[in-house]
Amino acid sequence: MKIQLDKITAKEIIPGYMGKLIHGQKMSLVYWDVEKDAEVPEHAHENEQIMQVLEGEFEFTVDGSTAIYTAGELIVIPPNVLHKGRALTRCRLMDVFSPVREAYK
Amino acid sequence: MKIQLDKITAKEIIPGYMGKLIHGQKMSLVYWDVEKDAEVPEHAHENEQIMQVLEGEFEFTVDGSTAIYTAGELIVIPPNVLHKGRALTRCRLMDVFSPVREAYK
Repeated sequence: MKIQLDKITAKEIIPGYMGKLIHGQKMSLVYWDVEKDAEVPEHAHENEQIMQVLEGEFEFTVDGSTAIYTAGELIVIPPNVLHKGRALTRCRLMDVFSPVREAYK
Repeated sequence: MKIQLDKITAKEIIPGYMGKLIHGQKMSLVYWDVEKDAEVPEHAHENEQIMQVLEGEFEFTVDGSTAIYTAGELIVIPPNVLHKGRALTRCRLMDVFSPVREAYK
């Protein structure tokens, strides 16, 4: 039942975004290793999302409002709200989604 | 919209468990600072839970099965499954819950 992050093989979900994925019944947890300058195009989804920066600097635009996030900073993105991002440096990010992020399976 | 973890005041939810709480619409995220030897009594809840150890050694029993978790190790606890825990050292833990953990509000 124990999951070890260092034994999960990362998947490149978006170019430059290598994600280690953990799916439950109601949530998905993702640990991202992101290349500098890699971008997430603007998108929205039914899943609520909480994004946290663990390392690096990440420019994130949510509902038209842009800020730079660094380690220990996070944001709650309500369902169906447009957002996009760009790694200003190499980054480590964590996302949690509910319901499960089926598109990442 | 940006949340800074170091500006959240921790609440002692269980003796020895100081939690920084972030509640969305569908999820709760908790960062715990746990005293050595502090125990979570056996309990269960309707919320799915993903528990991760960030630092320290945490003895965790889920559905009668006990293991020691260290940094980078996690477990998905399905809804309504009994679990209990004990900090073998001072620990930092992260939990996510879905739906929102109303009991922690």
